[in-house]
Amino acid sequence: MVNQQFTFSVHIMTALAFSGDVMDSESLARSINTNPVVVRRLLLALRRGGLVATFAGKYGGARLARQASRISLCDIYDAVEPRPAIAVSHRKAWKHCPVSCRMQKIMSSVSRDAENALRGHLARVKLAALLRTVKRA
Amino acid sequence: MVNQQFTFSVHIMTALAFSGDVMDSESLARSINTNPVVVRRLLLALRRGGLVATFAGKYGGARLARQASRISLCDIYDAVEPRPAIAVSHRKAWKHCPVSCRMQKIMSSVSRDAENALRGHLARVKLAALLRTVKRA
Repeated sequence: MVNQQFTFSVHIMTALAFSGDVMDSESLARSINTNPVVVRRLLLALRRGGLVATFAGKYGGARLARQASRISLCDIYDAVEPRPAIAVSHRKAWKHCPVSCRMQKIMSSVSRDAENALRGHLARVKLAALLRTVKRA
Repeated sequence: MVNQQFTFSVHIMTALAFSGDVMDSESLARSINTNPVVVRRLLLALRRGGLVATFAGKYGGARLARQASRISLCDIYDAVEPRPAIAVSHRKAWKHCPVSCRMQKIMSSVSRDAENALRGHLARVKLAALLRTVKRA
């Protein structure tokens, strides 16, 4: 399931790319129109993913860990989305039904392949392209 | 957001393809290990999508509206998933921030393209292929 975490994270990363500098969570939260606590939680996930460097303290904040041309939307997706877009049911199968007995394996494969198609697409979109769209406007 | 509705619906469609006949919602619910009410709701959506024919009454139920080779997972996805996998934020933009002002448009495009990549993949997987996997096992 992909939720707003991904959208918010792409927003954070685009804002950091645009500023080219350190931004604090309050400024990022204002840009997204959300709570700084939400931003800080996402920054931690993005840091774990190696996408941002964070700095504590009064003048703390975050900046990109590498160039926007070397960050794809798939990098961001992988950093903040632990669940696949297509959920698989893990309910107990009904032993007398061949479909019921095979469905979990079939849907695991469907979910994995669909996720790879989605991630493959996101891997081809670089943060630098989003930045160009902002600057062009 | 893709949730269990899609997984349950693929299960329903595979079971109907496997039976080759009319199945009632109780049998389908037993195969999925869920409530018949959930099955009936999904059957209505699948009927609206033109994928099943439903029959009321004591011996009622549902059967495929066309051959499994002519039904793709994208047909099922479109019938039961009204929301895109990648949610777009519709929060008010912060007028002083160029990123904030552009983000909704940028993410709408990202969401639409990602959805098309996902749907393109699902369109290539036919229900008949899932049926073969069940029969082969």
